Amino acid sequence: MLATVMYGPGDVRFENVDDPMIIKPSDAIIKLSATCICGSDLWPYRGLQASRGPAHMGHEYCGVVVEVGSEVRTVRPGQFVVGSFCLSDNTCPHCAYGFHSSCVQREFMTGAQAPYARVPLADGTLVATAEVPGKDLIPHLLATSDVLGTGWYAADAAGVREGSTVVVVGDGAVGLMGVLSAKQMGAERIIAMSRHKDRQALAKDFGATDIIAERGAEGVARIKDLTRGVGADSVLECVGTQEAMSQAIDCCRPGGSIGYVGVPHGVTFDGYAMFSAQRRMLGGPAPVRRFLPDLMNRVLSGKIEPGKVFDLSLPIEKVAEGYKAMDERRAIKTLLTV
Amino acid sequence: MLATVMYGPGDVRFENVDDPMIIKPSDAIIKLSATCICGSDLWPYRGLQASRGPAHMGHEYCGVVVEVGSEVRTVRPGQFVVGSFCLSDNTCPHCAYGFHSSCVQREFMTGAQAPYARVPLADGTLVATAEVPGKDLIPHLLATSDVLGTGWYAADAAGVREGSTVVVVGDGAVGLMGVLSAKQMGAERIIAMSRHKDRQALAKDFGATDIIAERGAEGVARIKDLTRGVGADSVLECVGTQEAMSQAIDCCRPGGSIGYVGVPHGVTFDGYAMFSAQRRMLGGPAPVRRFLPDLMNRVLSGKIEPGKVFDLSLPIEKVAEGYKAMDERRAIKTLLTV
Repeated sequence: MLATVMYGPGDVRFENVDDPMIIKPSDAIIKLSATCICGSDLWPYRGLQASRGPAHMGHEYCGVVVEVGSEVRTVRPGQFVVGSFCLSDNTCPHCAYGFHSSCVQREFMTGAQAPYARVPLADGTLVATAEVPGKDLIPHLLATSDVLGTGWYAADAAGVREGSTVVVVGDGAVGLMGVLSAKQMGAERIIAMSRHKDRQALAKDFGATDIIAERGAEGVARIKDLTRGVGADSVLECVGTQEAMSQAIDCCRPGGSIGYVGVPHGVTFDGYAMFSAQRRMLGGPAPVRRFLPDLMNRVLSGKIEPGKVFDLSLPIEKVAEGYKAMDERRAIKTLLTV
Repeated sequence: MLATVMYGPGDVRFENVDDPMIIKPSDAIIKLSATCICGSDLWPYRGLQASRGPAHMGHEYCGVVVEVGSEVRTVRPGQFVVGSFCLSDNTCPHCAYGFHSSCVQREFMTGAQAPYARVPLADGTLVATAEVPGKDLIPHLLATSDVLGTGWYAADAAGVREGSTVVVVGDGAVGLMGVLSAKQMGAERIIAMSRHKDRQALAKDFGATDIIAERGAEGVARIKDLTRGVGADSVLECVGTQEAMSQAIDCCRPGGSIGYVGVPHGVTFDGYAMFSAQRRMLGGPAPVRRFLPDLMNRVLSGKIEPGKVFDLSLPIEKVAEGYKAMDERRAIKTLLTV
């Protein structure tokens, strides 16, 4: 089949690769209904993260099961499924504790920017719907696989609840999903930090009550103004740079919580500063599997439309253009139709 | 009066100082019933923390009110009171949120290793008992002022609850109070890391179910053995060194929580490592005032005897010997009788 391979920074090709096949008895093969490009795919694309040779790209996926290994029990061919970008057995103590992204058998999904993909640990990873959903729901269901699940985890880790005041640092796709998640969790005030008109509009659509274009000390001062000098109860850090992390810490109130889901690149914390600031911190790769059934239900019942975050849709053979558009910030997130 | 002054590392004197007096209308003067030496007093004593000239020492206190400023409303002369080492107004948004140690008016108590002391922000800081308690209760009530309150906060910040598996890093007075606190919160398993026989015995007395003498990788391996490879739900870091913090992080399960109350000295966290480890972190100076009424009630009702942590009692004029005994680890914590 033809699929997406990254050879190095800026070099993404849609080319012939081996068809995926069952390797372990716990695998499943799915036919993708749609796939997409993740913000984290841009780190190696921009050369900001070491990559070893050609990589089969893509870890966000939904589709129809076409084949399962001999041990697979919970899904069967013909079913529509969504899975997390983190593959997990859903039975180990870490999964049972809700941290599937630290599963003792954890693997990360690869090769999903393709018409077909192999999903290891299928029983633990995939969640099936009762019926194959209509085409209009596909982008929204696809979003639950990572970008929404990650934004949701940021809000969960930041302890967002009914009545919370929330700041979202980062107006990329994950940050925007963080806004949507905070809204669903009942946050009263959701302040999105964004400098881009189109993203500001989407943030408002997802539930942001305030937009702050300023950054750094000025941004913090604006947050303090909006919160009577107190700071936010919960801050979602959805970037992964030191600048964004410092912004998140400074916007948060003492005793408040920061959920950080941007993969940290060169970020450090000073122990004494963290001690003095008295912020609760939890981050990591999102345990999307914990949230997946609930998020899929919210989509299927029409409560949320996270797929609105896709502002560019391309046929998968144009995947290289999809990367380029996101790299140049012409697109927030690219959907790839298969 | 005669009181405790630290001139520099190793140089503690009991000498003539000005009697404390009401300076602000929100002050109170108390006659100390007893006071004590804190593990944190040892940082400057050991020259590990810069200090600027002679300092009036002591921040743990309980006693009888002898005078109040014109604005004080909640306590009156004759009442027995305990206060936190963090002085707070108990009305600002940070206090209302439970983080009195980040009060907008926060000051740190000083000068309590003395027969009399001035307590600023008396209304917000002091908690009175219904009656003046008997002498036998004084050490236990004194302990609530900081050492128990801090151990309690470590357990609270680490999310200890009914059935938790808890590790306590540090067998100093705060660590031992962390053991007692975890026990009160219903922890099922409390693993104390301690290499000292007398402290091990006290930890067991306070509720530790297991003692681990090993440290570093070996200590982590022992914890993993005891928790079927999983790690602890909650870890209390009660030291403040990089070694202790790394120990705490490595003993904790993914998604578990670390409450850190040892003032960090030279501690740093790598953002990516924290992200990958997926640990929840909260530390800081303990908001003891939040817990004080409850902790005092537990003492008054005989539920807890935190004063057992004082294994040396000296008349206050021998305060210098008290510091020496703690510095040389001959004493866990020194009570000073007034």
